[in-house]
Amino acid sequence: MEKNVLVIHGGGPTAVLNASLYGAVLAARESGEISHVYGAIGGSEAILKEDFLDLMQVPEEDLKRLLVTPGTAIGSSRYALSDEDYAKMPEIFGRWNIRYVLPTGGNGTMDTCGKIQKACENTGIRVVGIPKTIDNDIAVTDHTPGYGSAARYLAETVAEIGADVKSLPIHVCIVEAMGRNAGWITAASALAREKKGDAPHLIYLPERPFREEEFLEDVRRLHEKLGGVVVVASEGLKKENGEPIVPPLFRSGRSVYYGDVGAYLAELVIRKLGIKARSEKPGICGRASIPLQSAVDREEAVLAGRTAFEAAHSGQTGVMVSFVREDRADGSYRMHPGTVPIQEVMMYERKVPDSYINTRGNDVTDAFVSWCRPLADIKHREFIDFQESYWERKGKSE
Amino acid sequence: MEKNVLVIHGGGPTAVLNASLYGAVLAARESGEISHVYGAIGGSEAILKEDFLDLMQVPEEDLKRLLVTPGTAIGSSRYALSDEDYAKMPEIFGRWNIRYVLPTGGNGTMDTCGKIQKACENTGIRVVGIPKTIDNDIAVTDHTPGYGSAARYLAETVAEIGADVKSLPIHVCIVEAMGRNAGWITAASALAREKKGDAPHLIYLPERPFREEEFLEDVRRLHEKLGGVVVVASEGLKKENGEPIVPPLFRSGRSVYYGDVGAYLAELVIRKLGIKARSEKPGICGRASIPLQSAVDREEAVLAGRTAFEAAHSGQTGVMVSFVREDRADGSYRMHPGTVPIQEVMMYERKVPDSYINTRGNDVTDAFVSWCRPLADIKHREFIDFQESYWERKGKSE
Repeated sequence: MEKNVLVIHGGGPTAVLNASLYGAVLAARESGEISHVYGAIGGSEAILKEDFLDLMQVPEEDLKRLLVTPGTAIGSSRYALSDEDYAKMPEIFGRWNIRYVLPTGGNGTMDTCGKIQKACENTGIRVVGIPKTIDNDIAVTDHTPGYGSAARYLAETVAEIGADVKSLPIHVCIVEAMGRNAGWITAASALAREKKGDAPHLIYLPERPFREEEFLEDVRRLHEKLGGVVVVASEGLKKENGEPIVPPLFRSGRSVYYGDVGAYLAELVIRKLGIKARSEKPGICGRASIPLQSAVDREEAVLAGRTAFEAAHSGQTGVMVSFVREDRADGSYRMHPGTVPIQEVMMYERKVPDSYINTRGNDVTDAFVSWCRPLADIKHREFIDFQESYWERKGKSE
Repeated sequence: MEKNVLVIHGGGPTAVLNASLYGAVLAARESGEISHVYGAIGGSEAILKEDFLDLMQVPEEDLKRLLVTPGTAIGSSRYALSDEDYAKMPEIFGRWNIRYVLPTGGNGTMDTCGKIQKACENTGIRVVGIPKTIDNDIAVTDHTPGYGSAARYLAETVAEIGADVKSLPIHVCIVEAMGRNAGWITAASALAREKKGDAPHLIYLPERPFREEEFLEDVRRLHEKLGGVVVVASEGLKKENGEPIVPPLFRSGRSVYYGDVGAYLAELVIRKLGIKARSEKPGICGRASIPLQSAVDREEAVLAGRTAFEAAHSGQTGVMVSFVREDRADGSYRMHPGTVPIQEVMMYERKVPDSYINTRGNDVTDAFVSWCRPLADIKHREFIDFQESYWERKGKSE
C-alpha cells in the first residue's frame, strides 16, 4: 500500500514558512518510501474539502523557489475546526493513504495538531507538528523558525532608520514592532546597534507595563543629547492595569479596535514635549521580506521540515519539532533539533523573561542580545559616518 | 592658489544620497586640479559655522562605503538660511578657497542653490545643484536620483505583502506610501505586479481627489473575488475640496497634525464594510533600505555627483544636473545627464501627469509602468504559488 504525507499550514506566514515545506518534501523524496507528498491547499479546511496538491513530482528548480517565496505557497487559514471535522479526518486520510500529517504553525496550530493526533489514535496515522511563528512565543523550544528572519528584518531596518534619523537629527521616530503579547521581535531591534549611541535608543516590550511619564522623561533627555531619537515599541504595549495604552477607537461586533501604538506615541511626544515626531509601522513587511531573511533561520526552517518527516517516519506521533541550543564552552552557536510531546506545547504562550529586560523597562539586557544574535544572523554593516569622525576630531582639538 | 570643492546636503535623505557625494569626490580627485573636497557637516548651517571635513584623503575602501550607507554621511538639515547668511558666504568660501559649491537636495535646496549663486555672482565661485529626492517632484529632469530606489522598495515590498495576503486571504491590507503632494512613489507600487490579479489591487495617488464611496465599492468587489486585497494609498490623499481625507488630530503651534491615511482607510473598511483590514506604513524604511536600492538609481546618483563637479569645472554655474531620457527605437532605457538653469527648477513641484493615471483614479496606466520600470530596476521574482496552479487545474477538470 502506498504511503503518503500531508503538510498543512495554519495561521499567518513567516519569511521561511515555505522553507519548512521544502524540507519536508525533500526528506520524503529522499526516503524512497513515500509515493505522494500532498500540500493542503488553503489551510486546515482543505483536509475536509480534500484539496490536496501532490508536490512529489515538482521539478527541483521549482521546489527551490520555496526558499525565496514569502507567505505560503500552499495557502493557510484561520479556520476553527470543529469536533465533527476532526472525527471525519481518519477516514479521509485513510482514503488518500496519508500516513504522516505535518501541521505547520504556531500555538493555535499545535492545538489543532494535538486534536488531529487524538482523532487518529490507533489508526497508525502519525501527526508531527512543525513550529512556525515570527512571534517566538511557542514553549519548550529554544526558538521557532520564522523568528530569526523577523528579528533580522527589524534589526536591519532599525539600523537603517537610525542612519537616516542621525543624518537629519530633528525628530523622534517611533518604530512599531509586531508581537502583541510577547516582545521577542521588539527586543531584537537591539541588534541594530554596533556601538554606543546607535539606534534604537529606547525599546519597550509588552512584558512590562508602559509608564508614560518615564517614557516622556527618557525621550526628552535623549532628544536634548542626540537630536534624533529612535524608539522601538511593541504594538501590544499595555498600561499598569493591563489595558492597551491606546484608547479604543471603535467596536465592531464583539471586537474592539485600537489605533496604532506607534502613531499614539508619536502624537504624545509632539503634544507633551513639543518635539517633532513620526512613526513607522512596517507591520507584515517584516514577516515577508526575502532580502532580509536570516540565512540561519532559513536553514533551520528547512531542518524543521526534514525533522518532522523523519520523526513521523521513525514512528513518532503527537510531538512537535523543537530546537535545542547546545551549551558550548567557546560561546559559539550550535543547535540540534529534537521533538517534544505536543501536550507540553499546546496553547502556552512564552513571554520574554525578566532576565532579558533591563530594570527601567526601556531596553533589553546583554543576555538577550547574546541569545538572539546567532538567530538573526546579521552581518557587519558597512555604514560610514563622517559626521561622527568630524565631531570627534573637533572635540579633541578644542 | 588651491582650488577646493564644497558639497552640502539639504533636507531628508534618500537611499543613494551618499552615492552622489561619492561621485563628486571621485570626479574631483580624478581631475587632478582639486586640493580638498569638503563635506559641509550637518547641512547648510555648516557653511556659516565653517564645519568642513576634507574627504580628499579618505581611503578608497572607506569612500566606497558611501554607496551602501543610508541617510547622509555628512549630515543634513532643514535650516532656513537668511539673507544675512547668504551675504556672508562669498567671504567664507574665499577664505577656504572653495571654488565649486555643490548643494544636493530637492526643491527647497535648489532654491538655496539659486540664492547662493546670486550671492556669489562675480566672485568666480561656481554653484551647481545635485538633484536628490525620493519624491521625484523636481521639474525639468526626467527623474531624480533617490526616486528609483524608493520606487523599487515599495514595489518589492508590495509584492511580498501581496504574497503574504494571498496566503491567508482574509483581510484588506492598506499600504501607506510616502509622497504627500506627488504620487510618484505610490504609483511605483504597480511594478509589484508580474501577472493579472497580482497586488496591488488598487492604487490611490494624491493627484486625484479621493472618493470614499468609489473606494469602498472597489474594495468590496475585490474582496468578494479575491479574499485578500492590497491597496496602496499616498499619505497625502485629499478630498474633492482639497482637504486631507483624515480629519485633523490636533494642533500644536501653527501646525495641524493629521492621523495616518493607511490607518484611516483600514478603519473605514472595517466600519463600513465589516471586512477585516489592517495597515502598514513602512515610511522612512522606504528611503533608507540598502538591500532594496535600485542599482540603476545608485549608478545614476554617482553620475549626478560626477556631472555636477564636471559642470562646475567646465565653467558652469547657477545650474542643476538633470537627466535626459533618450528616445530609443527599441524601447530600451538610456539616459544622459545634462544641466538646466536653476531658475527653471526652483520651487516648482512636479506632479504625476494625467496620462499616467487611469480614468477611475484607482490605478496607474501602462505608460507610467513603462516609464518607471527601468528606474526601479526590478529583477524577476522567483515566487512560486502552488495554490494558483491547484485552483487552475481543479477549475479545468471540473
